[in-house]
Amino acid sequence: MIDVCLLGTGGMMPLPNRLLTSLYVRYNGKCILIDSGEATQIALKKKGLSSKPIDIICFTHYHADHISGLPGLLLTMGNAERTEPLLMVGPKGLERVVNSLRVIAPELPFEIKFKEITDSEMSFEPEGMPGFTLSAFKVNHNIPCYGYTMNLRRQGKFNVDAAMAAGIDRRYWNGLQKGETIELEDGTVYTPDMVLGEARKGIKLTYVTDTRPTDSIVNNAKDSDLFICEGMYGEPDKLVKAKEHKHMTFYEAARLAKKAEVKEMWLTHYSPSLVNPQEFIGETRKIFANTVASKDGRSLTLRFEE
Amino acid sequence: MIDVCLLGTGGMMPLPNRLLTSLYVRYNGKCILIDSGEATQIALKKKGLSSKPIDIICFTHYHADHISGLPGLLLTMGNAERTEPLLMVGPKGLERVVNSLRVIAPELPFEIKFKEITDSEMSFEPEGMPGFTLSAFKVNHNIPCYGYTMNLRRQGKFNVDAAMAAGIDRRYWNGLQKGETIELEDGTVYTPDMVLGEARKGIKLTYVTDTRPTDSIVNNAKDSDLFICEGMYGEPDKLVKAKEHKHMTFYEAARLAKKAEVKEMWLTHYSPSLVNPQEFIGETRKIFANTVASKDGRSLTLRFEE
Repeated sequence: MIDVCLLGTGGMMPLPNRLLTSLYVRYNGKCILIDSGEATQIALKKKGLSSKPIDIICFTHYHADHISGLPGLLLTMGNAERTEPLLMVGPKGLERVVNSLRVIAPELPFEIKFKEITDSEMSFEPEGMPGFTLSAFKVNHNIPCYGYTMNLRRQGKFNVDAAMAAGIDRRYWNGLQKGETIELEDGTVYTPDMVLGEARKGIKLTYVTDTRPTDSIVNNAKDSDLFICEGMYGEPDKLVKAKEHKHMTFYEAARLAKKAEVKEMWLTHYSPSLVNPQEFIGETRKIFANTVASKDGRSLTLRFEE
Repeated sequence: MIDVCLLGTGGMMPLPNRLLTSLYVRYNGKCILIDSGEATQIALKKKGLSSKPIDIICFTHYHADHISGLPGLLLTMGNAERTEPLLMVGPKGLERVVNSLRVIAPELPFEIKFKEITDSEMSFEPEGMPGFTLSAFKVNHNIPCYGYTMNLRRQGKFNVDAAMAAGIDRRYWNGLQKGETIELEDGTVYTPDMVLGEARKGIKLTYVTDTRPTDSIVNNAKDSDLFICEGMYGEPDKLVKAKEHKHMTFYEAARLAKKAEVKEMWLTHYSPSLVNPQEFIGETRKIFANTVASKDGRSLTLRFEE
């Protein structure tokens, strides 16, 4: 299972009751944060979450509302005596931008590793997160910007009859179930496919902000259990503004959710001018019914289907 | 009169109910901000204050909790379409630190002017603030750090009898009252001292954070109407920690207030470990009675004495 908390739902600038958009994800004791605008560390504290265990920080892009909280967050992690390395993932320029911001956070008790995204897509399995894939894909903003997808694989059911029929000793079952290949001293080899059924549906989470609608979003968000997507404007007449600033209206986001056939969409990254996102949700649901106008701190535990 | 708002009262890191220490001062339509840690722009909004009219930002020093909110603040001022230049004042390195942070706020619709403090003391009258002096003085932290004093002069009473006796036409009274020297075409010169009594007590405000007690604080805070001073620790046994990290306990701050014979002291810049500053205020008041354990947003209008 994956714990998800949308720490903030604002765009552009933090407001007293709407902090900047940032996502906190926890799986297998590891934590990933996407974006850390000004006051993200306050949003974490409001939810009773610690910044110390954050292992990976991903950046969608380097506009201030997505990274301005980084120096303070790093210092707070340092003050909490984190010593394990921290991985940062982001578009080209990552190391330069982070080091420039670190003029006020030069000394930290942990190492920072950088993984710059240089292609239009990138995928990897983070350390200590077996079966978990973190992928980035390019979207369309006025500076290079990426969306992120997290996939947790689920293996097929363990077939006891098949294991018994193949004469596999019980002590190897656990390893095979975990996907390991077992090689005995006599040369016998047991592979997971001998005892596991077809891979079952896993968990998929997609996060997208600061972009116009793109095919890459539809393709990458395809069949997501949860699709967190920017909806900068609720007012239909702000489409012009959305196009100009390379953002989306609620309705554009809803059309993406529909095309990608996701289970549920959470809107976020509202313009400060949008006082009551809920006001426009009725019209949005006519396009994609399972839309939520998120508020700060919205949380969910994504589980494998029974 | 001078409007004062202590926007936040925290040190080290912003907490949901205690934002970082920052002071907002308004006089004659001009605004000065001292320090802008992460979320200072939220603190401004909480008080219904706009960041757009801020004309001067002073920095005590460049630890992150005093400047990390700057990029976001600058962008918000830019988004509010400020075009008037902004003056920044701070210790050596000001331009380098600010420009490094501006990696995420490179384009602004207003000019930034820098005034670096190179000596142990510096004073000037900001543009558009007649009679108002802004002074910086060095304190004792683990990196160069300055306290600030603001002084508003008050001229002597206008002496109508003296003006009449000197045969000064009424139309020149207003100028003389404002401190202007009047020169007539026939060579006659009227100076303010001809019609003004002795200068009266003005308004004095002193702001000090991140330091051990120093003589410079006592000298510069002398007779302040309001002395805003750090009190990192309330627990008496934290004196060792205060010395180690170059901060102060409530009691050290109170002794400074007493020596400087200020009217009133507001404590601020509490350690995140200090849950209830009020708990220690009784003991502190035994040293300096007029001590306040400030909370975020504490405001006061300082007026000339009647």
